[in-house]
Amino acid sequence: MNQLELWERYKTHLCRCEPVGLSLDISRMGFTAGFLEAMADPMQRAFSAMEALESGAIANPDEGRMVGHYWLRAPELAPTPDIRAAIETTISDIKAFASDVRSGKIAPAPGQQFEDILVIGIGGSVLGPQFVNDALGTPRQGRTRIFFCDNTDPDGIDRGVLDRIGDRLDRTLTIVTSKSGRTPETRNAMLEVMQAYARRNQCFSEHAVAISQEGGELDRLCRAQKWIRLFPIWDWVGGRTSQMSAVGLLPAALQGFDVDGLLGGAREMDRITRSRVVRSNPAALLALMWYHAGDGRGSRDMVILPYKDRLVLLSRYLQQLIMESLGKETDLDGNVVHQGITVYGNKGSTDQHAYIQQLREGVHNFFVTFVEVLRDREGPSVRVEPHTTSGDYLFGFLTGTQQALHEKGRESMTITIDEVNARTVGALIALFERAVGLYASMININAYHQPGVQAGKTAARRVLDLQLRLIKELGTHRGRARTAGQLAASIHAPSDIETVYKILEHLSANPDRKITRTPGTTPFDATYTAE
Amino acid sequence: MNQLELWERYKTHLCRCEPVGLSLDISRMGFTAGFLEAMADPMQRAFSAMEALESGAIANPDEGRMVGHYWLRAPELAPTPDIRAAIETTISDIKAFASDVRSGKIAPAPGQQFEDILVIGIGGSVLGPQFVNDALGTPRQGRTRIFFCDNTDPDGIDRGVLDRIGDRLDRTLTIVTSKSGRTPETRNAMLEVMQAYARRNQCFSEHAVAISQEGGELDRLCRAQKWIRLFPIWDWVGGRTSQMSAVGLLPAALQGFDVDGLLGGAREMDRITRSRVVRSNPAALLALMWYHAGDGRGSRDMVILPYKDRLVLLSRYLQQLIMESLGKETDLDGNVVHQGITVYGNKGSTDQHAYIQQLREGVHNFFVTFVEVLRDREGPSVRVEPHTTSGDYLFGFLTGTQQALHEKGRESMTITIDEVNARTVGALIALFERAVGLYASMININAYHQPGVQAGKTAARRVLDLQLRLIKELGTHRGRARTAGQLAASIHAPSDIETVYKILEHLSANPDRKITRTPGTTPFDATYTAE
Repeated sequence: MNQLELWERYKTHLCRCEPVGLSLDISRMGFTAGFLEAMADPMQRAFSAMEALESGAIANPDEGRMVGHYWLRAPELAPTPDIRAAIETTISDIKAFASDVRSGKIAPAPGQQFEDILVIGIGGSVLGPQFVNDALGTPRQGRTRIFFCDNTDPDGIDRGVLDRIGDRLDRTLTIVTSKSGRTPETRNAMLEVMQAYARRNQCFSEHAVAISQEGGELDRLCRAQKWIRLFPIWDWVGGRTSQMSAVGLLPAALQGFDVDGLLGGAREMDRITRSRVVRSNPAALLALMWYHAGDGRGSRDMVILPYKDRLVLLSRYLQQLIMESLGKETDLDGNVVHQGITVYGNKGSTDQHAYIQQLREGVHNFFVTFVEVLRDREGPSVRVEPHTTSGDYLFGFLTGTQQALHEKGRESMTITIDEVNARTVGALIALFERAVGLYASMININAYHQPGVQAGKTAARRVLDLQLRLIKELGTHRGRARTAGQLAASIHAPSDIETVYKILEHLSANPDRKITRTPGTTPFDATYTAE
Repeated sequence: MNQLELWERYKTHLCRCEPVGLSLDISRMGFTAGFLEAMADPMQRAFSAMEALESGAIANPDEGRMVGHYWLRAPELAPTPDIRAAIETTISDIKAFASDVRSGKIAPAPGQQFEDILVIGIGGSVLGPQFVNDALGTPRQGRTRIFFCDNTDPDGIDRGVLDRIGDRLDRTLTIVTSKSGRTPETRNAMLEVMQAYARRNQCFSEHAVAISQEGGELDRLCRAQKWIRLFPIWDWVGGRTSQMSAVGLLPAALQGFDVDGLLGGAREMDRITRSRVVRSNPAALLALMWYHAGDGRGSRDMVILPYKDRLVLLSRYLQQLIMESLGKETDLDGNVVHQGITVYGNKGSTDQHAYIQQLREGVHNFFVTFVEVLRDREGPSVRVEPHTTSGDYLFGFLTGTQQALHEKGRESMTITIDEVNARTVGALIALFERAVGLYASMININAYHQPGVQAGKTAARRVLDLQLRLIKELGTHRGRARTAGQLAASIHAPSDIETVYKILEHLSANPDRKITRTPGTTPFDATYTAE
């Protein structure tokens, strides 16, 4: 295809969504008109499934749940008046609460003000807030800072959060987010942070807000300890689609982001992507291109390349949204399908100096989704050459890379947004949420559960139970040096010797556990002794 | 295989490197003894190629260059006394310079001290320093802060760097790193930062240090403007293997990291991985496992999962090291091979809440490299349950996830380090550098060039040249409204209409360019006018 033919293809397929300032260009994907025709029926069935979902069907059959994240920005579509009222009340409560915190009406102590925000959560409880914070935040000296505690790594909690916050912890509002209320990583981090407040003689409850489902452990704790506030989340909102619930809106509102813009952008994108006219529905086009690129079975990785530093976390956000939704062993009929689409990426043009070499020349196992932002910055730009700005270079590298990949038969799409603001970010989130839903229907899987994550948690529980038995056994015979093999036998777990060995290596590397390791002739002959 | 058989396999294959406190466990990779035998000859040839490289052969034939990053931590192995002297002098110069900066002997103004560091660079010039800074740094209030400017994104420079530094810019030491001295992203960011110093009436030269090759543009600029200092980099060090040159050592030394530990860990790992005895050579084992997992053609992605927040940038560092080195179209004999290995990942257990669902149940297109750190934190840990710490949970989730993936036939390796310190970080870098070199030999490609990145840059240059012609044309007829098609014709580039259209959309979205867009009946009928 020559340049003018490509231009015709570009014009034919460009999907412009004026109300949200977003376009999708699929002209550099190698699909044919025949492909779109062949997919017309599955696509229409996917629209029907989405309509059923939006009107309150049990779209997550395994867990017997409705899937309601689209109602969060259009409460009038909720299937019951109670749900509608719950959404509307929560949004207005969040705005009022954030306003009171920002005005100092809600404060850590008389005459003080909350200066920093700490969000404790993991997975869907923080990936959205992290992405939105990075996309919309402009850290300046003296401004509200936001921190995320998203793991159960002790050193990560110390140096990633507590060391950075330092003595401002006294004026830090801590949000603990856990849908179920019993996520161990979140609970552990909360306990560590509680202790940090205590070390500073600060009352944790007077600094804490919870976001959780009613009736869960966190809900009970929050009520019992009289935390400042509790915001609800509901069983019909999945963690990975919870950005427009309190999970995402509360941190956004506390930072002064345009919450109505976020909701409005998502709502408008929802409206646009409900259309059954595929060529003007960017979510349908995305889903179709994913299907085309990976033969409907994820045979190509999705590389997410925003040319804008603010959007560097988009790929991490989409990793969860897409991989956890689509990476499934069985389809809705119980057939083993091993579905999914792998997602990775950081940002351009930085990544051109990292892995574009492989994308252009190497293993052909991917397609690229570029994200372009037309507006370079607030205010004027210095000219780095006559009539040329840094932003022109960024634009040039994006366009040049699109062309260089196309020359080599590597497929790409481009999403262009006018600028990064609350409205376009809301629209981007809604766009991908719906593309995931439509694609899941096309490949006949449940996008709204995650049955595969339980096995790792259960195995972890077994490891921790084994550790308890070991610690007890070691403590019963203080001063006695035994090998991993001997200890495994002592606790009647001889076949668990490998796990026992690993537990002992971990415990003895941490001096506060007071378990001494004495090297042996091989690593496996080392002995361990409780002091 | 039952648990005891797995334990035997674990013991048989565990590669423990005592001097650097690192182990590699390959027992959960599904290779057979037959595979290791079959690979014995290619492996020995790879060792020979590595020996030739280390003794100064032209290991990068396309560019006619030696490949000398191993000499950086063992200068006595350099092929000439001049190279040895250059390495040794540079290391001691860096230490002396960092000491002078940290003591205030080298200062922005009398009585002041450099408080912050800004590194401007992209790709190999910053990925190493970013990784090492995050692995070894412990930001505390009041400490030296480090910032990275790694793109030509105007907004990214403003809010990612300049807004954060604020008025501390006066006391910020800026390091400009560009091997060639003409990387446009780096040059643009430097010009933007120069202007920021000027806006504060600060002399840039009195705050600036360069790292560049002799005789290049940056070298000339630095000398002409009398910057504080220039540190060399040499043509026999590739960007992606430059962490042990001034590129990595200068930022490390300025932050007070243990430079000798970094160098010593790498040096020791080099010594260990020169061994031709495969089972005690972790670099050879890694390379073999990559070959096994991806059939020697990168058919499976490499997921990097460190269970330690400090190591979250390891995957991004390895993305460049591995994908840019291995992602090649042709082999050394000129055959088209489309090689490479895709690398992605963030950190555990956080990623268990993102994409482990897909890894366990979904498309089977990957193998995992876990990284375990035995030491949890400095100081004692609060117990989150009886006898149980947050670190135990982290360990439990790692072990549980290894088991859960193994149950489903998903392969994984585990690198265990005693703790994250300069020595283990140096060892990790050296381990992967050599694994890449050995694997490249096994698949017969040049790991030390990047011919595929030029196309995107050349295409970008064409875009910027086209833009210049457009701006000139628009300026010649101010006030005249024309469509993209008309303007493309006016500058005699009718077949470039798509690029012209995109340039105009970008320019007109930025008010300081003073090009007005007037909508038409379709997006392509919009007209553009220079004010």
